[in-house]
Amino acid sequence: MRTNISMKCISCKRSAEIKILYPFCKDCFIKHYLRRVERVIKRFGLIEKNDRILVAVSGGKDSLACAQSLYLLGCKFSVLYVDVNLPKCSTEKARNLVERFCKERDIPLYYESFKEFFSIENIEDFFKFSGRDLCATCGMLKRRIFNMFARKHGFNKIATGHCADDVARYFFKTIISSDEKMFAWLSKIKPIMHSHHEKIVTRIKPIFEMLEKENEAFIKFQNIENFEKEKCSYTKSKDRIEDILREIDKTIPDFKIKIARYVESMEIKKTEKEKDILECKRCGEISTSDICSFCRILEKIEKNIKNKK
Amino acid sequence: MRTNISMKCISCKRSAEIKILYPFCKDCFIKHYLRRVERVIKRFGLIEKNDRILVAVSGGKDSLACAQSLYLLGCKFSVLYVDVNLPKCSTEKARNLVERFCKERDIPLYYESFKEFFSIENIEDFFKFSGRDLCATCGMLKRRIFNMFARKHGFNKIATGHCADDVARYFFKTIISSDEKMFAWLSKIKPIMHSHHEKIVTRIKPIFEMLEKENEAFIKFQNIENFEKEKCSYTKSKDRIEDILREIDKTIPDFKIKIARYVESMEIKKTEKEKDILECKRCGEISTSDICSFCRILEKIEKNIKNKK
Repeated sequence: MRTNISMKCISCKRSAEIKILYPFCKDCFIKHYLRRVERVIKRFGLIEKNDRILVAVSGGKDSLACAQSLYLLGCKFSVLYVDVNLPKCSTEKARNLVERFCKERDIPLYYESFKEFFSIENIEDFFKFSGRDLCATCGMLKRRIFNMFARKHGFNKIATGHCADDVARYFFKTIISSDEKMFAWLSKIKPIMHSHHEKIVTRIKPIFEMLEKENEAFIKFQNIENFEKEKCSYTKSKDRIEDILREIDKTIPDFKIKIARYVESMEIKKTEKEKDILECKRCGEISTSDICSFCRILEKIEKNIKNKK
Repeated sequence: MRTNISMKCISCKRSAEIKILYPFCKDCFIKHYLRRVERVIKRFGLIEKNDRILVAVSGGKDSLACAQSLYLLGCKFSVLYVDVNLPKCSTEKARNLVERFCKERDIPLYYESFKEFFSIENIEDFFKFSGRDLCATCGMLKRRIFNMFARKHGFNKIATGHCADDVARYFFKTIISSDEKMFAWLSKIKPIMHSHHEKIVTRIKPIFEMLEKENEAFIKFQNIENFEKEKCSYTKSKDRIEDILREIDKTIPDFKIKIARYVESMEIKKTEKEKDILECKRCGEISTSDICSFCRILEKIEKNIKNKK
């Protein structure tokens, strides 16, 4: 957030309070932010009449900015707060501030936790046996809980706070991977990811073209408290990407938005594997193989318990 | 070119003479370089039996590295040297060293110049009236001369020295543009660009996955003299991109190769306009509109001469 005494708001010419891309006063910044969110909603047909929308809110700046924009744009929705049972990422404080946010705005709030929803007694074991880093497993569990919860409660759309920074990170990660499968996944990242199966709920990303910095300013200007959790960054390659993006930011501050727009334009690529949509033989959820990755971890844990006995 | 007294060649374990991606001794570096070029040639079917190949050589490190790799890989070809009539880019020295390169290897050499080939008396005027920067106009004229010359002389493939650095530059330029037309163009950049019309000669880029630094080392190790012309960099955005790529290089030295591989994997996107291939009403060459961009510049010059009279 850079400000300069002599800077004027490019919209109303009053003195500017913030400059991320352009100098704005507080009111004009909020208007500009909402206009850009609204444009994405309209251009990609994110929200239609009679939609039942569930917004996933963690208490972080991005998901709160997503919920607050939809609220200010007059959209009706419910909120789901998920306790991911990781001390660094889900705390009493985060839960409380999401509760307050919803109460003040009269938004229905649902609460779930990994442990209870999946009836996993020892969630630490689940993370341990996943064979992936914490964030990857957490992401997989979150996608699963959002989808199953929304389906169960009759929501036809799930909104998340994924923003341009997330798209840019994933974009660089994909390029560095040189992996055809990741190339195909990247091509599917869009502001709206339509359901391709009755068990999959359509996902929307209203703040797809917004920067993290903008989200932060947007909620701060409205006195919305957010939970500043530590960065979900356990892998080295992710840090390298952060460094690169920070460096590019210095010369091209809207670079991540440009990447988001580029990714929007990509034609969706199908990998061989996905052409048949399978249902997991154990849990019945959608999977790319006979047993879904969630159940494969459960099987590993069970096997381990058996071996111990 | 970084070297370190204690470094060993990762291939033969003798002392290393260069490290761009991995430490190599001179001989192993050349082998490694050629193996990578050969892999691209085979994977994309760049060269087939009975091909008549024309290699465009400017005397710069990239085009010489391209010609030298094809030569060492046992490929038969002719060389075309084009005098672009820009004092900074085409000099007597460049021409002489291309001549020497071809003579020493018994490679047929053709010489052409913008002025003579296009019968343009005042080439400076042509650049001036083009309304684009020098490099863009020069590129357009080069594509035109390569294509017309190859067709006229019965070559079925044109090889150029475009390398991973060029792909990476174009990639960033495209993303920053946020221009759907450029997105579509990017998707067509491949190691082989097949002819889609009888008037268009297939273009191949054997060193598509090689770095400029590698090209430089490859020819230096073989005592091939090259002409170091000033960077074709007249636009500000290009300089910004150079800075970004240099910065990324520090942490991910093969990043440009990764981009090249990503671009290879992109599905070709067709823009509305291209669906009908037109022939220019004035010169008969392929164009996306009634009059090709070359002839539009000629018309501007003619109009200007008329107005002066």
